[in-house]
Amino acid sequence: MAELKNDRFLRALLKQPVDVTPVWMMRQAGRYLPEYRATRTRAGSFMDLCKNPELACEVTIQPLERFPLDAAILFSDILTVPDAMGLGLRFAEGEGPIFDRPVRSAADVDRLFVPDPEGELKYVMDAVRTIRRELNGRVPLIGFSGSPWTLATYMVEGGSSKEFAHVKGMLYDQPALMHKLLDVTAQAVTQYLNAQVDAGAQALMIFDTWGGALTPRDYQEFSLRYMTKIVSGLKREADGRKVPVVLFTKGGGQWLESMAEAGADALGLDWTVDIGAARARVGDKVALQGNMDPCVLYASPERIRAEVASILAAYGQGSGHVFNLGHGIHQHVNPEHAAAFVEAVHELSASYHP
Amino acid sequence: MAELKNDRFLRALLKQPVDVTPVWMMRQAGRYLPEYRATRTRAGSFMDLCKNPELACEVTIQPLERFPLDAAILFSDILTVPDAMGLGLRFAEGEGPIFDRPVRSAADVDRLFVPDPEGELKYVMDAVRTIRRELNGRVPLIGFSGSPWTLATYMVEGGSSKEFAHVKGMLYDQPALMHKLLDVTAQAVTQYLNAQVDAGAQALMIFDTWGGALTPRDYQEFSLRYMTKIVSGLKREADGRKVPVVLFTKGGGQWLESMAEAGADALGLDWTVDIGAARARVGDKVALQGNMDPCVLYASPERIRAEVASILAAYGQGSGHVFNLGHGIHQHVNPEHAAAFVEAVHELSASYHP
Repeated sequence: MAELKNDRFLRALLKQPVDVTPVWMMRQAGRYLPEYRATRTRAGSFMDLCKNPELACEVTIQPLERFPLDAAILFSDILTVPDAMGLGLRFAEGEGPIFDRPVRSAADVDRLFVPDPEGELKYVMDAVRTIRRELNGRVPLIGFSGSPWTLATYMVEGGSSKEFAHVKGMLYDQPALMHKLLDVTAQAVTQYLNAQVDAGAQALMIFDTWGGALTPRDYQEFSLRYMTKIVSGLKREADGRKVPVVLFTKGGGQWLESMAEAGADALGLDWTVDIGAARARVGDKVALQGNMDPCVLYASPERIRAEVASILAAYGQGSGHVFNLGHGIHQHVNPEHAAAFVEAVHELSASYHP
Repeated sequence: MAELKNDRFLRALLKQPVDVTPVWMMRQAGRYLPEYRATRTRAGSFMDLCKNPELACEVTIQPLERFPLDAAILFSDILTVPDAMGLGLRFAEGEGPIFDRPVRSAADVDRLFVPDPEGELKYVMDAVRTIRRELNGRVPLIGFSGSPWTLATYMVEGGSSKEFAHVKGMLYDQPALMHKLLDVTAQAVTQYLNAQVDAGAQALMIFDTWGGALTPRDYQEFSLRYMTKIVSGLKREADGRKVPVVLFTKGGGQWLESMAEAGADALGLDWTVDIGAARARVGDKVALQGNMDPCVLYASPERIRAEVASILAAYGQGSGHVFNLGHGIHQHVNPEHAAAFVEAVHELSASYHP
């Protein structure tokens, strides 16, 4: 493997000194880039793109060609795992993901199994291997998965949901069944993430997009508990370096103290938290990743720069901060605004790392 | 006016002793009730129903005929105010609200005006008068409005939004223009709520559905500030009784301390906060309203009862708690489950009011 030329991202996650604050953007390979849209058109459907390692590699690297980002993230989808568990994923135009065989009954849960990461999910590992080779040590590669609870919302609802009627009905009325579903999903995610490390991922992120829809009690029991289990089962070293893990619960700002106990190296923050206050709350336990409102990228480059300055000042001196948006970049953002964002982070952060 | 026969709701909001914890449900007059759907069919469109005082009264009272609720809430929509400001509201089937003339430019903001509550909005005041008369002192009547920021999201986006691209673009890039929009909207809301009190509303609630989409700094500046302004301009007494005001920011659990300073009598809580922890945080400053996850109503009556018990125990002894859901009741809930919920609150809460 080629030596890593830029390890700011890994160093910041481990709170080791850096020259400037590293930055990447959630969903940085995506529809806001015309080159992504072109590759997507060549690929066919969204899942065709995910399942084609060469094209998944191409779109993963596209944003790095435009912006001096400090990390690449595997281009894939969180729903690859339940798809490999036999639920039949498809993306209907304008409707988002749909599972043809949602999990609604005890019999449905019994049928779930831990997919072989080098079997049903080999296309993901092939993508990781291809991207890692093509990156050639330029920046670290992040592997990822959805959290068990977040995957469960799609698995039980059969797609996206605003109300979570079915999945919360199961949680409230059949908690043992919900735990069984989450347990097998957590095993699947653990194997999936470890296989990504074996294939070349140098850091891992767990996306808990819907943990914030739970009560504080149920967040602990049905989401954080399974993320903690996963983290404790992960390979934490590869190529003689630590593989840092980032936990991100959107809407989890009220629960940072308990998230910091999960064993991860860093927490992702959405923009509803002041990052300085968050740092004071978690102390030395974890690094922080975030947390500019993605909507700031609709504003002028001057305004973007001011917002970056404000977040850097809130975090303050020293390492332990990976700059990011508080959620994925939106599809209608002007790529030049993303460029202004990345540039501002590097330029304005140097003084915080004397 | 008929004397109020059940004043638990008003007393709890003012932290005066009560026999049992009062309870009502956000969106208690709604699609989960077959009798509502029947009236709605007779009325025509959703806005036809809002604009017909007799039918709005009918659906307001329907849930009280089924359940021993401790308050009625005016049947209306938060978008009546921007509609009266000339934006042209309609509801497209399956698409939610649409404004034909969204507010995008300085010229659009300049055209906004404070509507006359007894002019363009007279149908709302007629509904309040009709409902108050028909209630005949049975329970207090709650009037309401959306918060300026929440109304602004619809006014600028032209409808519902997930990304808030336009409204946050304006907030970040043209803050002075956004303040101008919010200022006229806050004036409109103040007059609207005061007119509801004149027409017979005995308590007021401000719904800030989208305040939780803001950064902590912008929540203070663009949402809480205008709600505070409104509260300071409200009539707080009618018929020789105090008219309590409830502020509800969905997703505002991180900001309860500052919300408690806004001058309202109570804060509404969604279900992502433990109500006991919330009580400790706000101290004696405000009463609390909430906060059961509406999805619990998909579970069995036994499970609903257990969840009610858990929330009552978390709040603890004494007055200052109005039981409610953490958001509006969902349309697919079985009305018998709503009945079990209301019954559980009254039965299980007596021991907390010795």
